[in-house]
Amino acid sequence: MKTFEDYQKAYLDYRKRDKAFSLAFYLLEWDSETIAPTGCFDVRSEYIGVLSQMRNENFLKEETQSAICFLASHLDKLDTNLQKEIKNIKKTLDKTNKMTQEELSLHSVLISKATQAWAKAKKEKNFSLFEPYLTKIVDYERLYCERVSTKDCNGYDVLLDEFEEGLNQTVCDEFFTTLQHNLVPEIKKLSTRKQKYSYAFNKQTFDCQTQKDYSIHLLNKMGFDFTRGLTLESEHPFTTGFECADVRITNHYYEDNFISSIFTALHEGGHGLFEQQMDKKLVGTFLTQISMSLHESQSRLYENCIGRDKDFWLQEYPTLQHFFPLQLKGVTVDEYFHFINQVTPSLIRTDADEVTYPIHILIRYELEKKLMNRTLEVKDLPKAWNEAYKRYLGVEPANDAEGVLQDIHWAGGSFGYFPTYALGSAYAASIYTQMQKELDLPKIYASGSLKEITNWLRQKVYQYGGSRNPRDLVEEITHKKFSVDDYLMYLKKKISIQ
Amino acid sequence: MKTFEDYQKAYLDYRKRDKAFSLAFYLLEWDSETIAPTGCFDVRSEYIGVLSQMRNENFLKEETQSAICFLASHLDKLDTNLQKEIKNIKKTLDKTNKMTQEELSLHSVLISKATQAWAKAKKEKNFSLFEPYLTKIVDYERLYCERVSTKDCNGYDVLLDEFEEGLNQTVCDEFFTTLQHNLVPEIKKLSTRKQKYSYAFNKQTFDCQTQKDYSIHLLNKMGFDFTRGLTLESEHPFTTGFECADVRITNHYYEDNFISSIFTALHEGGHGLFEQQMDKKLVGTFLTQISMSLHESQSRLYENCIGRDKDFWLQEYPTLQHFFPLQLKGVTVDEYFHFINQVTPSLIRTDADEVTYPIHILIRYELEKKLMNRTLEVKDLPKAWNEAYKRYLGVEPANDAEGVLQDIHWAGGSFGYFPTYALGSAYAASIYTQMQKELDLPKIYASGSLKEITNWLRQKVYQYGGSRNPRDLVEEITHKKFSVDDYLMYLKKKISIQ
Repeated sequence: MKTFEDYQKAYLDYRKRDKAFSLAFYLLEWDSETIAPTGCFDVRSEYIGVLSQMRNENFLKEETQSAICFLASHLDKLDTNLQKEIKNIKKTLDKTNKMTQEELSLHSVLISKATQAWAKAKKEKNFSLFEPYLTKIVDYERLYCERVSTKDCNGYDVLLDEFEEGLNQTVCDEFFTTLQHNLVPEIKKLSTRKQKYSYAFNKQTFDCQTQKDYSIHLLNKMGFDFTRGLTLESEHPFTTGFECADVRITNHYYEDNFISSIFTALHEGGHGLFEQQMDKKLVGTFLTQISMSLHESQSRLYENCIGRDKDFWLQEYPTLQHFFPLQLKGVTVDEYFHFINQVTPSLIRTDADEVTYPIHILIRYELEKKLMNRTLEVKDLPKAWNEAYKRYLGVEPANDAEGVLQDIHWAGGSFGYFPTYALGSAYAASIYTQMQKELDLPKIYASGSLKEITNWLRQKVYQYGGSRNPRDLVEEITHKKFSVDDYLMYLKKKISIQ
Repeated sequence: MKTFEDYQKAYLDYRKRDKAFSLAFYLLEWDSETIAPTGCFDVRSEYIGVLSQMRNENFLKEETQSAICFLASHLDKLDTNLQKEIKNIKKTLDKTNKMTQEELSLHSVLISKATQAWAKAKKEKNFSLFEPYLTKIVDYERLYCERVSTKDCNGYDVLLDEFEEGLNQTVCDEFFTTLQHNLVPEIKKLSTRKQKYSYAFNKQTFDCQTQKDYSIHLLNKMGFDFTRGLTLESEHPFTTGFECADVRITNHYYEDNFISSIFTALHEGGHGLFEQQMDKKLVGTFLTQISMSLHESQSRLYENCIGRDKDFWLQEYPTLQHFFPLQLKGVTVDEYFHFINQVTPSLIRTDADEVTYPIHILIRYELEKKLMNRTLEVKDLPKAWNEAYKRYLGVEPANDAEGVLQDIHWAGGSFGYFPTYALGSAYAASIYTQMQKELDLPKIYASGSLKEITNWLRQKVYQYGGSRNPRDLVEEITHKKFSVDDYLMYLKKKISIQ
């Protein structure tokens, strides 16, 4: 007869092994995205498959499953964090068990092939090369939703809930509809306006090494700890962390676009601080896994709320000019400030400004919802995509690469993910609105260091890692029910300075 | 009743999983030695331990053991390479099973602590901080030798055999005694000679980026494939490879020592070519694991036999001057050639010239032999070390850091490893002697590319990876029984140009 202690030990043993696999995947992904030689991937992907299989066996073996089930029925005996962890993992286990091993493994193969097909289709600007794969992926997601639906959480809600617990179509519909009603008319007006400023300095050449030095200056200013982290280059910037002790961010440097590396440093730096500054008590648990929307709120907060603030640049701009004395000679802080806050409807989500960004997400949310609710089929997706861009942003893709094929997410089977980007921005605006009340930001900017802001964020957000529900936490920080209002007010200010 | 196919399947499944763990360790070690932030190691080493444990379980589980035993008793049903692999692994399994799980796991912990203690002791130049750990390691090695000894292979031979199959004290004694008798008197004469050349150019500053560019030029010239490999910096240069498809070499660049990066590039490049150019049929098997002495023969061949050859530099020196026009202005190729072939007895193995190098190894071999044969105890090791250096090289360490603590090997439990360094140099000399007969080296050097040499080596050596016994292979290449003669003749030429 097994005791509580036996089950607990079995669970902790499973967790330790799973974390060890995480470490391997952490480095494999990092290496693949940064320095791995192009010829290594055929061999590498085979063994990544084997590692995944072993990790999966560790999760699905009888000892682990019975330990999870036992602990899930004795939650009262566990501390708060372990309760939360067990609840999450029991939910994952139950959902996994709704699919057969064969279905899961076929799905892995599908995703891997679909990602390659997507890359080729995007390169050739031809959706039809990707369509058969996406059709199968959508079929799988529909089946998955059907199988794991419960009374309280069904259909597309199943997927939304996976990226933020409790998120559903009711919440998203209200959120996006309010944004649409308030922003779309304003964006249409802006499209026809005459530019107030000319930005001649953007035509200059900005040395890449100097951009890199300036990025590191910004990261230091924010309090990023280089003894527990590092920065390197990659085509698509990202942040990845393992247990607070090793947090890595990438950036890219283009001689003709110095703005990109500045805001990438602030964005990835925000992610990086969150990873580095969670409570060390979470290390070794699964609560180091931060929910997407909350993670994104912290990158957006540094990138946008602080990084595009006039008060910030009033203090920081002379330093930037010091790094690029020739290029920024004669460019006033006011011109620079307006440049980094331009609003222009465009086709590509990742290049979008703050105001049009949530509309890019709204479009993806609407399309995903229709796909999952079977009111749209994959073959009709490009047309629906293009019509939505025309309707909401007044722009039309010339081809699929700058339209429906621009994002990798669907190829990876990530449905329900996109809304977290917009929610993250909204959470950032709410937290920032509260921060402005509690901190004297202009004074902090004048001090030359942002560490007081980082400390405030550690206390309010970072320390909790993945142990809190994002909306609950935002409500606790702001002392009110979460709504889109702070975000809307924030965006309207951005519109007003155009 | 299990069939042959069942056992074979079980074995192949074990091997695939073991390789997947290898991939993880390959990247973990690479990362740790190159870019990992200093603060990550506490957390990382815990999970490395968990990964090791899982890898070990995969080896020792009943299915794997019974498959290995079954296949080992049905060798005639296997192809040559699988026969070789099964023989090796059966030997490893039998030896592992001679130790208890507790002993093995205590030993892992000991090694980990000993390595840290060694680093501290070396930093503080104080052997006594390391002595208790080394005493326990030596005790373990003695016990291990006792337990796994057989009639044909016993005592210290057990350890020698692990780094090169069939190597034993009889072979090593003859090898090192001949070297000692022939080299030590010559080295003593050289110690008292007057330098023929002055090397003023060595006082100059050599830009690190230019050194890096020159290293890459050399690697390209040798035929290193950068689509299946890369080069980065690390404190201690090394090469690591995974399955031909991903081969990584490091170098270090010092402004005041441009020679170091040149010969490191040639040395690590030699290792790298061997890893990249083994037969692809070996991928996925354990025969990608090349024995130390043969691996070292290929790094030494490029570093020394070719890289310190006058004919090579007669062609290559103008290019080197082109990279460093100011620093090498007025330095003749003859001066440069003599500089890179200087012989000077010194204290540190890794800085030693070609002629004194095997004497450094001889000293370690003699001490290891005495330790394992219980005619020397760890507490008396520093004294024995210093006396040996005085006796053979005429130099005396001022402290333990430049004496007995200089190498990490013993802290890692690697006894029997050192002789492979000297054997590697000897194999290199034998293979090079044969190569000179078969290839027109001056003509190849004049062609501007070394690929004809690399191709010859692929055909003679690289393709076999770890599938051949080193001495057998050298004898096949040279069409004669292996002896120290080619190596001695080669070294005597080096002495003659002093």
